[in-house]
Amino acid sequence: MMITHEAFPVEPWQVRETRLDLDLLAQSESLFALSNGHIGLRGNLDEGEPHGLPGTYLNSFYEIRPLPYAEAGYGYPEAGQTVVDVTNGKILRLLVDDEPFDVRYGNVIDHERVLDLRAGTLSRRTQWRSPAGKQVKVHSTRLVSLTQRSIAAIEYVVEALDEFVRVTVQSELVANEDQPETSGDPRVAAVLRKPLEPVHHEQTDHSALLVHRTRGSGLMMVAAMDHEVDVPGRVEITTDTAEDLARTTVICGLRPGQRLRIVKYLAYGWSSLRSRPALSDQVGAAITGARYSGWQGLLDAQRDYLDEFWDCADVEVEGDPDCQQAVRFGLFHVLQASARAERRAIPGKGLTGTGYDGHAFWDTEGFVLPVLTYTKPSAAADALRWRASTLDLAKERAAQLDLKGAAFPWRTIRGEECSAYWPAGTAAWHVNADIAMAFERYRQVTGDHSLERECGLRVLIETARLWMSLGHHDRYGVWHLDGVTGPDEYTAVVRDNVFTNLMAAGNLRAAAEACTRHPETSRELGVSTEETAAWRDAADAAHIPFDEELGVHPQNDGFTTLREWDFTANTVYPLLLHEPYVRLYPAQVIKQADLVLAMQWQSHAFTAEQKARNVDYYERRTTRDSSLSACTQAVMCAEVGHLELAHDYAYEAAMIDLRDLHHNTRDGLHMASLAGAWTALVAGFGGLRDDEGVLSLNPHLPGGIRCLRFRLRWRDFRVTVQVNHDDVTYTLRDGPHGTLTIRHADRELTLTTQAPTTVSIEPCKPLLPLPPQPPGREPLRRRVDGKD
Amino acid sequence: MMITHEAFPVEPWQVRETRLDLDLLAQSESLFALSNGHIGLRGNLDEGEPHGLPGTYLNSFYEIRPLPYAEAGYGYPEAGQTVVDVTNGKILRLLVDDEPFDVRYGNVIDHERVLDLRAGTLSRRTQWRSPAGKQVKVHSTRLVSLTQRSIAAIEYVVEALDEFVRVTVQSELVANEDQPETSGDPRVAAVLRKPLEPVHHEQTDHSALLVHRTRGSGLMMVAAMDHEVDVPGRVEITTDTAEDLARTTVICGLRPGQRLRIVKYLAYGWSSLRSRPALSDQVGAAITGARYSGWQGLLDAQRDYLDEFWDCADVEVEGDPDCQQAVRFGLFHVLQASARAERRAIPGKGLTGTGYDGHAFWDTEGFVLPVLTYTKPSAAADALRWRASTLDLAKERAAQLDLKGAAFPWRTIRGEECSAYWPAGTAAWHVNADIAMAFERYRQVTGDHSLERECGLRVLIETARLWMSLGHHDRYGVWHLDGVTGPDEYTAVVRDNVFTNLMAAGNLRAAAEACTRHPETSRELGVSTEETAAWRDAADAAHIPFDEELGVHPQNDGFTTLREWDFTANTVYPLLLHEPYVRLYPAQVIKQADLVLAMQWQSHAFTAEQKARNVDYYERRTTRDSSLSACTQAVMCAEVGHLELAHDYAYEAAMIDLRDLHHNTRDGLHMASLAGAWTALVAGFGGLRDDEGVLSLNPHLPGGIRCLRFRLRWRDFRVTVQVNHDDVTYTLRDGPHGTLTIRHADRELTLTTQAPTTVSIEPCKPLLPLPPQPPGREPLRRRVDGKD
Repeated sequence: MMITHEAFPVEPWQVRETRLDLDLLAQSESLFALSNGHIGLRGNLDEGEPHGLPGTYLNSFYEIRPLPYAEAGYGYPEAGQTVVDVTNGKILRLLVDDEPFDVRYGNVIDHERVLDLRAGTLSRRTQWRSPAGKQVKVHSTRLVSLTQRSIAAIEYVVEALDEFVRVTVQSELVANEDQPETSGDPRVAAVLRKPLEPVHHEQTDHSALLVHRTRGSGLMMVAAMDHEVDVPGRVEITTDTAEDLARTTVICGLRPGQRLRIVKYLAYGWSSLRSRPALSDQVGAAITGARYSGWQGLLDAQRDYLDEFWDCADVEVEGDPDCQQAVRFGLFHVLQASARAERRAIPGKGLTGTGYDGHAFWDTEGFVLPVLTYTKPSAAADALRWRASTLDLAKERAAQLDLKGAAFPWRTIRGEECSAYWPAGTAAWHVNADIAMAFERYRQVTGDHSLERECGLRVLIETARLWMSLGHHDRYGVWHLDGVTGPDEYTAVVRDNVFTNLMAAGNLRAAAEACTRHPETSRELGVSTEETAAWRDAADAAHIPFDEELGVHPQNDGFTTLREWDFTANTVYPLLLHEPYVRLYPAQVIKQADLVLAMQWQSHAFTAEQKARNVDYYERRTTRDSSLSACTQAVMCAEVGHLELAHDYAYEAAMIDLRDLHHNTRDGLHMASLAGAWTALVAGFGGLRDDEGVLSLNPHLPGGIRCLRFRLRWRDFRVTVQVNHDDVTYTLRDGPHGTLTIRHADRELTLTTQAPTTVSIEPCKPLLPLPPQPPGREPLRRRVDGKD
Repeated sequence: MMITHEAFPVEPWQVRETRLDLDLLAQSESLFALSNGHIGLRGNLDEGEPHGLPGTYLNSFYEIRPLPYAEAGYGYPEAGQTVVDVTNGKILRLLVDDEPFDVRYGNVIDHERVLDLRAGTLSRRTQWRSPAGKQVKVHSTRLVSLTQRSIAAIEYVVEALDEFVRVTVQSELVANEDQPETSGDPRVAAVLRKPLEPVHHEQTDHSALLVHRTRGSGLMMVAAMDHEVDVPGRVEITTDTAEDLARTTVICGLRPGQRLRIVKYLAYGWSSLRSRPALSDQVGAAITGARYSGWQGLLDAQRDYLDEFWDCADVEVEGDPDCQQAVRFGLFHVLQASARAERRAIPGKGLTGTGYDGHAFWDTEGFVLPVLTYTKPSAAADALRWRASTLDLAKERAAQLDLKGAAFPWRTIRGEECSAYWPAGTAAWHVNADIAMAFERYRQVTGDHSLERECGLRVLIETARLWMSLGHHDRYGVWHLDGVTGPDEYTAVVRDNVFTNLMAAGNLRAAAEACTRHPETSRELGVSTEETAAWRDAADAAHIPFDEELGVHPQNDGFTTLREWDFTANTVYPLLLHEPYVRLYPAQVIKQADLVLAMQWQSHAFTAEQKARNVDYYERRTTRDSSLSACTQAVMCAEVGHLELAHDYAYEAAMIDLRDLHHNTRDGLHMASLAGAWTALVAGFGGLRDDEGVLSLNPHLPGGIRCLRFRLRWRDFRVTVQVNHDDVTYTLRDGPHGTLTIRHADRELTLTTQAPTTVSIEPCKPLLPLPPQPPGREPLRRRVDGKD
């Protein structure tokens, strides 16, 4: 079921649900998820049910699941890692007299939920008439603290309306709550049905604590709650606990207009090492700290944190309120996924659902980190530190595969490879260059070399070694990468994927340069000048196939001579659900930007004419069956002058979850596509590129955007870019030196902190006419000025 | 544990085990398996245990098993089929006084088992002293009747030696006997642990019958036994039955020299359709028929059947007793696997074990049927009829894959695709051409056009249609097959595999010609002259890549420019157990003859020089990690003049199971390699080719073979070919006309039934020196004259 505009109106700083539609419950739980990168709470209703998918997650708290193979092969991972739903502390059940508050019974007279992107809260206001006719108003506000990593809190207010009611609130911690069946494999279902083994529970009158442990992965977790209760008149508060349940019960009577207010503080902690008492104490201290701050203190700190973020990160889109809302929604969730992840992974779905088993992919380094590097570099650095912390596992994996260096996993939670389909997993070696180049981008953009010294150099060296053992020179001295899979998962295990070869060459060159910058450390890591010379030579000799007759780059060797896909036949999207790989792989049909992504990330390797011709060629063959495509198509369509088409793609990337375009928002949000909304606007209409180590901009707006204003961090500066249809104004803030030389429309331009610099937009005419897309895969038309 | 020469001496017409080695028990059970293609009994000891793998199989009697995928894809089969161990009727337990005869206790004073290749029996003689010191001789003979399809029988004789003993024999039918655990997947193990659901049981004094049904596949089976007992003095015979057990107990006393003789008749039947009473009656009638023939009658018929077979099929190898024994052993098992299969599959392991889940592969049409077509054409025709009977399933599979025509399964029992790894399953499209060309070979060799009319034409047409929808013409009009896997499973999902392209072209041409022969039927099947013209055009335009610089055919497009495998590194064979596919696929390392097989099966498409250069190139890169390689390498090494190397390969193909070269003979025999022993001798040293519709021979013997004599059926003739180092004598028998024109050493030669024709061997000098193999993969040196 598509999420419509009416249910969630377009507003600049919030996402608001105006009526409760049970068919959209699971999607709204994802949209309204709160997280700080450490704790994730899906937007489940306070009372626990109805629900689409109940979910409380702790970053990197996982269970081991078997990976079954009907025909196994050497090097296939035997066990996977899967995120588990941990102890649910969101639950506050309400009884009005003797009837439970449940939106499926009685009458919901009024309903509104608001995700406030500046306050960092999810609030809910509802008015309910019980089957017996008693009316109450319920107002709850929930936050996951961005400043206190282990803390979430809920303010829950019940008000009697027409007559006296007896009100009972049961505030709970529930472990091993029932889940919808998610796997057809009974062994996997068994692992996930009751993932938590009880270890310990304790309580006071108004607080409780549950300790559990996973069976397979052996991780221990603690969930604790404490309450402040505020009500006129007599109130009784009791708490009882069992292995999988802690319940604080609050009973009182309310006359019309009187309110019961409960603040529930929640704290979570987990560890693979620390003892049960140490972990319990840690969580106890966290909850004490939260009570010390108090509800208002938490609210204030949350808003301060976000004010600071938006000041550096906000994108203003005048004339397109949809994109305005969506890009902020996307940035907010990207921040939530990463803010306090602190050397843990940023999963493909953040901590918003169980999609992809909670795994992190190349999405992190390829799509999320570019945004964070420009807007919240400390979070980008932490994510890169996480990746570097898995280097030893990646080296073990490489050794298992008879390769040198490090082979990072295609999908993982803790660092071990969890991909059970190697043609679109292990063979997608590009993940290693994506990771290496994210370190390089971080260094170039922030000017911070300390991360390279700390861990980036090792990653660059070990990935370079991987490429050298994967590639080989043919009898003509040309360097090839065979049997690789690029980003496009409809074409796999090929020779010389252009994206992979360019990224690998970039990885090799960056590694060689990093070794030159750190001669002593690299010598300690066994790198000789012969080795770095070999890296440079391979990078220079890397084959980049080009089809001279068509004037386009084949996505890989021979791609442009494969059979064309017959889109006129009864093609049903996404193709992967209706066509076998054995048919898709040898055809010119593309799941997602691949060669086109190469043109964004390795922009310097293509001429303007090649870019125009390649966009024209691949637009006709790209199904966009992946959520990682629209943003890239937006960027490159903008570059070659198809600005309206680019705007359509930007809209699609931005709306993926707000409109549930891929019909799987219920399983969690698409972090990379949400980040891609920023990328579509900033790299697309702003023309941001950095692949040559220079801040390069070349803005052009589509008709539907009057003015675009965005902020970037570059080295020690903050740069504000304000674009309209005629000119662009660059404003330089901060920075130790007074000037910064950037590239504007391929010419050098020196900015100064003294005054803004305004220059004209470089006119941009497309070389080729607007290309068509595969029938049925035209981009979702953006709505103009909020109207369809 | 390797099977040594000492345990199984080399003898021309039998395989004899001279001592009981419990470590070789499982292997001996496979070697001593008896079958008629309908019933298969592993060579388990009469008393049931110890055993390696207890096994009783009925052709195509299978259970459904789940095929699990950690990451599933469209078109992956969800359920597989697996052979089940049916009711075991081989068991005759013996008690000597009160002690059970068990070779692990007491003393085995003497032991011998003999598989007699002319009698078609497995006999056993043993002398045993019980722990209490009582001695008996046991002599059993077992057969699975080649003339009475549902019947097996056992003669069991116990003789007292030094003193009086009380002898008890329990003759049993045991359903759901315990099996060693074979799958790590608990669901699969569960399916196979107790595969048979009891339906009915009944008995008389000396006979019993058990009826069972499989749960998932819903097949019903009946096993029945009856006994004749012959003993001096008093004997008591009783029978009792339960759901999973029927037991006839015979008790008597024997004085020294006295014997108890029991003949146990066994009958089996199964059906997916027939009612329980109908099936029971059918099996009852079979057992009555067997009793009517009697033990001696069954023995005599068995020998007559085999005499007839050997008269048309025997290969005599003077000077090489190992190959002599092995080629007869191989022919015997190929006959056993096919003789009475009667429109059921010939599995890769026959009915000798559970290896490969009991599935049939391209092995059948590619390796087994060529032998049967020349030696037992009625069995070849029956196997082809089975394949044709699955055509509708193959058409459904093609439709599921968005293809026209028919896509036969890579592995199956009943016809549905059971392959869970598509890169080496579905993508191995060549199986379709292998099947189609087996029909064509049958027609050419036998001259019998009735099978084509009956079903072959439809198979040719539907496979041609498959190729047309798989292939495409590029912008230069060249026809390509992309994303295919050839025979070599270390290289997959490639462009223009030479083997596949040649076979597909052959398939297309054969289909077009067949339609010309059957214009009316083909019109009824919707074939127009435009369609057949398109088949011919595609066949003519099929791309056959050739590396002009190296003067060799790349196995597929680009193969000769892939990285070389580093065999000097610590390479452990078979590579598939120690290296991931992601590394194997993009390297010049080959599991099994692929391009080299193309040169055998499509001999006319290569010049002599190309053959020599290709053999030289691929010998250096072929690991022979598949059992389907040595025989082909033997054939092509012989053709290019490396006769001693060819002899080594012939020896290896022949010895695969007799010496357990692949360390998995325990799971069943390698039918294709056993057939390959014949092929290595007849197509290798005899030079037999038939790919141009002409019987073509060009014999050359290696030093280690003095004389090679083999028999072929060709059209209505029987041809005997007797080769020595100087000349060859062709003897023509039967046939309505008096002459047959064959090709001898590329020249026409007319044979006559009047007198043998003797011509000289054409001298043969290798163009290139002897090529090396990958280190550690030199062929197992044949032993000369029976000595190492």
